[in-house]
Amino acid sequence: MRRFIPLTAAALLAAMPAAAQDLAAGVAAVRDKALTDGTAWDVVESLTTEVGARPVGSPAMERARDWGVAKLKELGFQNVHVESFTTRAWSRGAESAEVVGPWPQKLVILGLGNSASTPPGGITAPIALFKSYQEMLDQPPGSLKGKIAVVTQRMGRTQDGSSYGAVGIQRFMGAAEAARRGAVGYLIRSISTDDTRLPHTGGGADAGIPAAALSTPDAELLEHMVARGKPVTVHLDMTSSVNPAAPAWNVVGEIPGREKPDEVIVIGGHLDSWDPGTGAIDDGSGVAIMTAAAKLAGQAGPPRRTIRVVMWGSEEQGGSSRAYAAAHKDEAGKIVVAGESDSGPWRIWSVSLPKPGANHPAMKAFRASLPPLETAVSPAPPRFGGSDIEGLMAMGVPVVDFNTDASRYFDLHHSADDTLDKIDPAQLAQNVAVWAGFVYAVANSDVDFRAAAPK
Amino acid sequence: MRRFIPLTAAALLAAMPAAAQDLAAGVAAVRDKALTDGTAWDVVESLTTEVGARPVGSPAMERARDWGVAKLKELGFQNVHVESFTTRAWSRGAESAEVVGPWPQKLVILGLGNSASTPPGGITAPIALFKSYQEMLDQPPGSLKGKIAVVTQRMGRTQDGSSYGAVGIQRFMGAAEAARRGAVGYLIRSISTDDTRLPHTGGGADAGIPAAALSTPDAELLEHMVARGKPVTVHLDMTSSVNPAAPAWNVVGEIPGREKPDEVIVIGGHLDSWDPGTGAIDDGSGVAIMTAAAKLAGQAGPPRRTIRVVMWGSEEQGGSSRAYAAAHKDEAGKIVVAGESDSGPWRIWSVSLPKPGANHPAMKAFRASLPPLETAVSPAPPRFGGSDIEGLMAMGVPVVDFNTDASRYFDLHHSADDTLDKIDPAQLAQNVAVWAGFVYAVANSDVDFRAAAPK
Repeated sequence: MRRFIPLTAAALLAAMPAAAQDLAAGVAAVRDKALTDGTAWDVVESLTTEVGARPVGSPAMERARDWGVAKLKELGFQNVHVESFTTRAWSRGAESAEVVGPWPQKLVILGLGNSASTPPGGITAPIALFKSYQEMLDQPPGSLKGKIAVVTQRMGRTQDGSSYGAVGIQRFMGAAEAARRGAVGYLIRSISTDDTRLPHTGGGADAGIPAAALSTPDAELLEHMVARGKPVTVHLDMTSSVNPAAPAWNVVGEIPGREKPDEVIVIGGHLDSWDPGTGAIDDGSGVAIMTAAAKLAGQAGPPRRTIRVVMWGSEEQGGSSRAYAAAHKDEAGKIVVAGESDSGPWRIWSVSLPKPGANHPAMKAFRASLPPLETAVSPAPPRFGGSDIEGLMAMGVPVVDFNTDASRYFDLHHSADDTLDKIDPAQLAQNVAVWAGFVYAVANSDVDFRAAAPK
Repeated sequence: MRRFIPLTAAALLAAMPAAAQDLAAGVAAVRDKALTDGTAWDVVESLTTEVGARPVGSPAMERARDWGVAKLKELGFQNVHVESFTTRAWSRGAESAEVVGPWPQKLVILGLGNSASTPPGGITAPIALFKSYQEMLDQPPGSLKGKIAVVTQRMGRTQDGSSYGAVGIQRFMGAAEAARRGAVGYLIRSISTDDTRLPHTGGGADAGIPAAALSTPDAELLEHMVARGKPVTVHLDMTSSVNPAAPAWNVVGEIPGREKPDEVIVIGGHLDSWDPGTGAIDDGSGVAIMTAAAKLAGQAGPPRRTIRVVMWGSEEQGGSSRAYAAAHKDEAGKIVVAGESDSGPWRIWSVSLPKPGANHPAMKAFRASLPPLETAVSPAPPRFGGSDIEGLMAMGVPVVDFNTDASRYFDLHHSADDTLDKIDPAQLAQNVAVWAGFVYAVANSDVDFRAAAPK
């Protein structure tokens, strides 16, 4: 790894010409305002109280759309509108599970997205339990015939959330791998770092078998049972339905630029959520952070470029990224940068900026604003801006990647515990402050993240 | 408060005659064995895995009875038997709640013991929310007519669990107070120190109206809604049933005394639990601690007095204390001391001993064993030994009160989160070590906790 020697804030400021120093003062003012501003809290409090859970394809998502339009107008955004699309939406029905023998006990489960229904009356089958996902993958085809495969691999707590990719695979792909080996059902230990008896859902493979997450204590209960060496039999009863073309909406509002209105900064979060919680963390907070950051960045007067907030309408089950990219392919070349906040309301501990533009005076001004926020500039370039801007990225739109402290994210993610009370207003404000300063600096400069190399 | 000057362990030992020093060595040996012994863990692991939740009146409680008999025999206890009685048992049916307007959202609830059923189809009524219990009590009779009363007072975290008595009153009595004021339903913020979306049940008043606990995030959601100044309407649908004479059992095993078998030390925990968890903490751990402590205390050879372990069969809904006292009234004068472990599997931070006997050489030996365990001797006498020994206390049986660190107890208590994974084996072993040393000292001496005053 190459050594990275950051400039101090003072050194950065001293090296700037006068106009850049004005920009730096503007960024600092926006940052400081953000630290005492309650807009983000008010937005997420409003969304979780007045709408709550909002899975794509549900009536609640229609209410969320109307809420988004009203909220953006109320906050003074212009050109507020809705961009419609359709997408596949899986919906949960009734779900239950229990050990029927040798030691009858109820199990707490939550179906995974794309899970099939069981036949009416459910299925009853012996389980085959694997303490690691690899152990299940090592089973030959057909070896799980007639069994419910259970994977209980644990997820470690990480600040950067990297264990999600590593362990999450048992949720993303596991049902298909189990079905391929003959399994009639699939259960996983929740992709969770917590020990509560609340399972965590999320998208899974469309594998034709019922698939659900066990709460972490329930996964451990099955481990304790299996350790006794007797066959353990589980009854699983699950229903669900799929709408192949559910209506969905990306909700948009803008602060038009005064000099170059066609140059656009696209930021946002996703409005849809999974069903068990109120979607406070995932991703009411992202919607709130970006809405507040845009408002704060535009509060001193119209920016030179346009700031656009997008509340994407189908992240959890996919669809909004593709729809947004398709609708905006003609302006993709004019989108200066895109960013999504979708990793929680906690403090941003580092930012990754595209290498082109990173030493532009506007970015120097932004970087100079970060030390008081205890936010570092990562030497690594952005790798992934967010699910909803993947379509833009694929069209060459530059993205930034601001890294939120995800230590607690997977305690709550996709579970009933995704609720407002888990948000720390001080960390939320810090998160907004980083984004607001960035948006202000980009919107009031000519920084180009597409340039071949920094000067 | 009077100043309390504890003797050091060394000073205590130096002051003892030779026989007492033998006793002290015995206590220390039992304590040290307990710290590395896995019996308590194995017992609670077995109970939660092989039986799980065991509400009184349920088929699981029959399995628990059989488990208790088998476990005590397996561990070498003698005179293992079951003492039958009948008691009133309330059982949960289907339960659901939701805000129907102005902002439709599901609520997570759990009925309180003794809750009435709603009429078929449920009730729909405006809520009257009070942020403190006193605020509801201050309402005049009839003022809650046709409303669902909601009390959202919060519970503070305490090491000694004292906030349970202070805030728990809203659960113990609130439904009756709400009904008296005309309410048609009653909801409380769970008696909980946690922020998970799992409600906490427990016994409530038999008030003729439906009564349930909200998870703490749901209680806060209602506060956020009410703060908007519009009437909030809730739909509540609950069923339950009562068996006025459910069969129940206290399960008993003994290590008979070799010199004075009729002098008995009675220790135990309760075998029944609430239904949502597996009853690991409340009170599988108490059963495990006392069973292990008795076994360890008797392991060096038969004690002089009899050690009796009781797994009481109906603590949560009451009945086992009364039944036990009635069955043993003739031997009450011979019960040397009684103790119940029912405040969790965590470390014991202080012990309260009856003043008579506290300076007997056996208790000096016990006290000398405590400093390495970081357990203090409280200057206060025992006030409450446990729910299941109240009947014995009323007949003059001396009790001890060993204070478990309850800081985390009300995160889990009476909720689905009462599961095995919450137990820390090291703290469990410390807890057993305190009890085992005490039981050894009492069983191998003539200490009398009834004497008028210490010599």
